[in-house]
Amino acid sequence: MAISAGSRRPSPEHIFQTLNAHQQTSALKTAIELDLFTSIDEGNHSAAEVASRVKASERGVRILSDYLTILGFLTKDEGRYNLTEDAALFLSRRSPHYMGTIVEFLTNEQHFQNLTRLPEAVRRGGAANERGDNREPNDALWVSFARSMAPLALPGAFFIAQLVEAEQERPMRVLDIAAGHGMYGITIARQNRKAQITAVDWPAVLEVAKENAEKAGVADRYTARPGSAFEAELGEGYDLVLLTNIFHHFDKETCVQLMRRAHQALKPDGRALTLEFVPNEDRVSPPTEAAFSLLMLVGTDAGDAYTLSEYKEMFRLAGFAETTLHPLPAMPQQVLISEK
Amino acid sequence: MAISAGSRRPSPEHIFQTLNAHQQTSALKTAIELDLFTSIDEGNHSAAEVASRVKASERGVRILSDYLTILGFLTKDEGRYNLTEDAALFLSRRSPHYMGTIVEFLTNEQHFQNLTRLPEAVRRGGAANERGDNREPNDALWVSFARSMAPLALPGAFFIAQLVEAEQERPMRVLDIAAGHGMYGITIARQNRKAQITAVDWPAVLEVAKENAEKAGVADRYTARPGSAFEAELGEGYDLVLLTNIFHHFDKETCVQLMRRAHQALKPDGRALTLEFVPNEDRVSPPTEAAFSLLMLVGTDAGDAYTLSEYKEMFRLAGFAETTLHPLPAMPQQVLISEK
Repeated sequence: MAISAGSRRPSPEHIFQTLNAHQQTSALKTAIELDLFTSIDEGNHSAAEVASRVKASERGVRILSDYLTILGFLTKDEGRYNLTEDAALFLSRRSPHYMGTIVEFLTNEQHFQNLTRLPEAVRRGGAANERGDNREPNDALWVSFARSMAPLALPGAFFIAQLVEAEQERPMRVLDIAAGHGMYGITIARQNRKAQITAVDWPAVLEVAKENAEKAGVADRYTARPGSAFEAELGEGYDLVLLTNIFHHFDKETCVQLMRRAHQALKPDGRALTLEFVPNEDRVSPPTEAAFSLLMLVGTDAGDAYTLSEYKEMFRLAGFAETTLHPLPAMPQQVLISEK
Repeated sequence: MAISAGSRRPSPEHIFQTLNAHQQTSALKTAIELDLFTSIDEGNHSAAEVASRVKASERGVRILSDYLTILGFLTKDEGRYNLTEDAALFLSRRSPHYMGTIVEFLTNEQHFQNLTRLPEAVRRGGAANERGDNREPNDALWVSFARSMAPLALPGAFFIAQLVEAEQERPMRVLDIAAGHGMYGITIARQNRKAQITAVDWPAVLEVAKENAEKAGVADRYTARPGSAFEAELGEGYDLVLLTNIFHHFDKETCVQLMRRAHQALKPDGRALTLEFVPNEDRVSPPTEAAFSLLMLVGTDAGDAYTLSEYKEMFRLAGFAETTLHPLPAMPQQVLISEK
């Protein structure tokens, strides 16, 4: 059951729910930090059992668990809680797909601070802080991103590796711009022993990608080029340039500038691969993709969730021949492939 | 379209949406504060027109309006925004049912502070602050409540006046405990010229109720008894005692104590009328009523959204004969009537 399901007749209920929606963030964040989902997965089902396991009060666990049931992360039957499919798969540490770590980045203090200044951001049309120019480094945020968001990236990373036929093990030179945790390039490297990855990001962020490449056993085919995506020496002759979650931070002109750099770095029949929130042309659907713009309003000077037609036009201006859309299964993001 | 509609197949999307749900609160709060809904109701429909009217940037208004469309407060067609039925009725100042003022109380800084300490509240089983004992005054919060929440109370106030047959104009002495804005008693007084209202609340809060009684033209039948609901001299011989949104702040023992005071103040065939969030016995439905417990966990030492069976038992312990349920139409609250 979703808390913000709209009412069918005129009622203030949806307004009331929306003004209280920040409780949803706090509740899920708290449950993840208390490891409540893992505790239930381990066989604790009553509030008393879970409370004993997570070292909290029975009353607190009961009220929090009821709230998580309303949100759709737990089920409740005769006072016993169980995990829903999503919670079992993504929120229990016993699952290989655990992604509770994402709470660190998604509820990063900078996001909260940005949101408290939303009225000013609406007035001025961009971030109401000094961090709106995302061409500048912001280690506090992006190291947090790199450290915590890898699990959320994996479904997309496997999809991308499949899309570029990594399993065929043809020699492939890949440039991963704004690599972050590096998982998109690293997943290709794991599936294709002949792939060579070059990763670009700020020095502190690249340290995380290098650690991940080490853990994945691909460090010998992993080259780090620390620096700005707009200024670093990128090299040339790549088969593939990865541009994941980067364009939404910038205005169109800056995006085209980055696309041109990618174009120059590619070999003649190379491809740029973009992973992004791409809403429909109406900009209000699908909900998660379209909603992403609000984060860019408060967090960047001029970023946005661009539509497919906008991406096609920008890639065309940067010299690319054709751009095609490949929706990510079960994830609110899309892949674009642009042919040089 | 609701942002947190659950997905049908395993996907991290609902987790991602929930961790971002605090954006919903910020967006609606900002739109109300900018008076964006009134501006659209006045005939401004494009982002440029609205931006000009509310003195903001077109880009900021476009992104905020798109987000409000996703949340279901606006519709968008060919780049032109319109109000949904709820927004037109409740969020435009041109509507007599405007309730944008509720943003002041619902997003009061104390609620945000309480929520940031949810992990500690879950551990200890009650508010992680010094304000958890709601028998003590908290003018900063309750004057804000009294000043801002009256519009949200009106549908319930009219329903209650109907339920107690105010329109029959029989002489009626009403005691309004923890009156707040006073609208429940005042609405009875407006519909029944023979009704006499006695209101109890903290002195600073009662000033707001007295102002509202004055505005409603019932001040000559309105008596203020400033003080604690647990200690003030209440008087006796009342036909009706109103107990609106008060019990959820306390543990059961304290509720019964207050019910006993109401019982004593009633004449032999008098009735106590409770307005509350009363979830089903499963405590996880309906969503808004059940979700209310979380606010009580972070904001009170031992308050809760009690079920009907719990209310029946508490009123029985306090000496009442029978308690019946009367759901409020189109509002997530219920009325209980307890016969002395």
